[in-house]
Amino acid sequence: MTTKMRSEIGEQPAALRATLDALVPRVDEVRALARDTRQLLFIARGTSDNAAVYGRYLIEAHAGRMSSLAAPSIATTYKRKLDLSGVLAVALSQSGRTEEIVETLVWAKACGASTVAVTNGGEDSPLAQAADLALCTLAGEEKAVPATKTYTTQLAALAVLALGLDADVNADDLQRVPDAVERLIADPGDVDAVVEGLAEVAGVVVSGRGLAFSTALEAALKLKEACYLHAMGLSYADLLHGPIAVVDERTPALLVASGEGPTLQGTVALARRVTGAGASAFGIGGGAELATASTAALNGPSLPEWVAPMGLIVPAQLLTESLARRRGIDPDSPRGLNKVTQTD
Amino acid sequence: MTTKMRSEIGEQPAALRATLDALVPRVDEVRALARDTRQLLFIARGTSDNAAVYGRYLIEAHAGRMSSLAAPSIATTYKRKLDLSGVLAVALSQSGRTEEIVETLVWAKACGASTVAVTNGGEDSPLAQAADLALCTLAGEEKAVPATKTYTTQLAALAVLALGLDADVNADDLQRVPDAVERLIADPGDVDAVVEGLAEVAGVVVSGRGLAFSTALEAALKLKEACYLHAMGLSYADLLHGPIAVVDERTPALLVASGEGPTLQGTVALARRVTGAGASAFGIGGGAELATASTAALNGPSLPEWVAPMGLIVPAQLLTESLARRRGIDPDSPRGLNKVTQTD
Repeated sequence: MTTKMRSEIGEQPAALRATLDALVPRVDEVRALARDTRQLLFIARGTSDNAAVYGRYLIEAHAGRMSSLAAPSIATTYKRKLDLSGVLAVALSQSGRTEEIVETLVWAKACGASTVAVTNGGEDSPLAQAADLALCTLAGEEKAVPATKTYTTQLAALAVLALGLDADVNADDLQRVPDAVERLIADPGDVDAVVEGLAEVAGVVVSGRGLAFSTALEAALKLKEACYLHAMGLSYADLLHGPIAVVDERTPALLVASGEGPTLQGTVALARRVTGAGASAFGIGGGAELATASTAALNGPSLPEWVAPMGLIVPAQLLTESLARRRGIDPDSPRGLNKVTQTD
Repeated sequence: MTTKMRSEIGEQPAALRATLDALVPRVDEVRALARDTRQLLFIARGTSDNAAVYGRYLIEAHAGRMSSLAAPSIATTYKRKLDLSGVLAVALSQSGRTEEIVETLVWAKACGASTVAVTNGGEDSPLAQAADLALCTLAGEEKAVPATKTYTTQLAALAVLALGLDADVNADDLQRVPDAVERLIADPGDVDAVVEGLAEVAGVVVSGRGLAFSTALEAALKLKEACYLHAMGLSYADLLHGPIAVVDERTPALLVASGEGPTLQGTVALARRVTGAGASAFGIGGGAELATASTAALNGPSLPEWVAPMGLIVPAQLLTESLARRRGIDPDSPRGLNKVTQTD
């Protein structure tokens, strides 16, 4: 049986191509809107929040502007005005219909921010309608509850946003992403070994640093929502401040790193520390070095660090889908969840 | 046997009184340094990061300025300069000796920020020496690895910071905190019932919203590091975006709320949803309403919402200490952890 989630994972190369074809030509619109932008404020929840973490690191590391994630309750619960002049507020919602996100974007505008929507809900969605500029992803309809193609296309939209903020990256790298994702789907590495390693555990710690931190958070969220696993997504450094205590023979670590970039060495060292303590470390990406230091490993994309997160999540999606079935769960419809989450 | 952790929990009223006596008279120094502050940037890891989350909500909700948490890797790993003019950078480190935090504070200063240190390490600590202004907490030496009195006194220092930023709060509320904490230690509610409820579980979801979100994160960290529990700290809204799937008869929820304020009703509704689904919800604070909606409950402080987090964490500390012993763990020395964590 092919699940909807598995089909939608496979649709990502086409979804990414369509989204990049639509959005890359719009870089100048972003540039015009962002002319006076001093800093960015991302507004998101759930999977979109993990995409926002990618955006935050990408903009700070490569476009040299402060970036942060909004606390929507300041807008919706405390109803407090802030001075957001010089701020570009970027709201992400797969559906474009999550009221809390729309309300927070409207609040940001009223506080003086310029506003961008990133959504798969189309130009007519409330979020796109409320924003100064809408970057609509073209992932097509997503039926499985765990977001896959709507997530990776959000990352693509954020990469386009970074180009509009004159990031110090090679824009051509973006065009390599769909093929790299396609190769990963065909050859994700030893998924079965990692599924077996996680089949009976109660929890897993998922860690990454810098740009790959977003992938760790998103992988943890997938494992939580589709496998009911106690998966903690943590940065490499935060893990060492306390939660490392939970890693033991019954709680493996899943460690994510790009094959290049300044965070790789720390991730390899962490894998050695975990395995040295007798626990299992499963690698995602990080090239031969992380694979060698790990108990078993999934492949990462052959991509520069700034676009690697669009590929790094893919083996984690395949792992989630397979592990859910192994644990007797239908990954398309985890309990307690609907496709569009409404929060106040 | 009395553990060091239990003793140090009991020392909090005195630690809070000493810290407030030392720092409240320094509000004008904060005010002078913060005269041109447009926004705040908190720099922290681990428990201090949870204190920073309190600071962030407090400053946004009550002092009307944007606040966010720094990603230290931008400074230490990517070594990228940002324009931090108009920013007040506030670094928190219990020891004042965590190199990553000192390095990020020095980076912030080089990027144009004014800088504040919040530390229990004294005026001579590297962090205090590096900052324009040091707010030193007077918690005394903390011997147990899980931070307790160094955390609540950090919150007190951040409350003083908020007064220096002309927050719309009643400064006299602060003086009520030590007595309220003392009362909670004497009468924390039915700790034994919650210990029994968590004695055999693999994981727990800890949730709160707004100012109490920081308490949820800190309670989850305590349960992770001292009880090896898979404890996820999540905002009320983020919980509904996916992780609610893990709440079941084997995974209870621990829900934190102040006895007043705009986030109480949502937390009560969440408790009803969890118990309605057949899972256990344990309340902390939230008054009679949250207690009634919960399976069992711990008391919260009789304090206004803006200072309540200094009390709300106390029953969670007592729960952690008791639950660790119940699970056969020495809470003073969890595996894998040292008192000062060094990360690069």
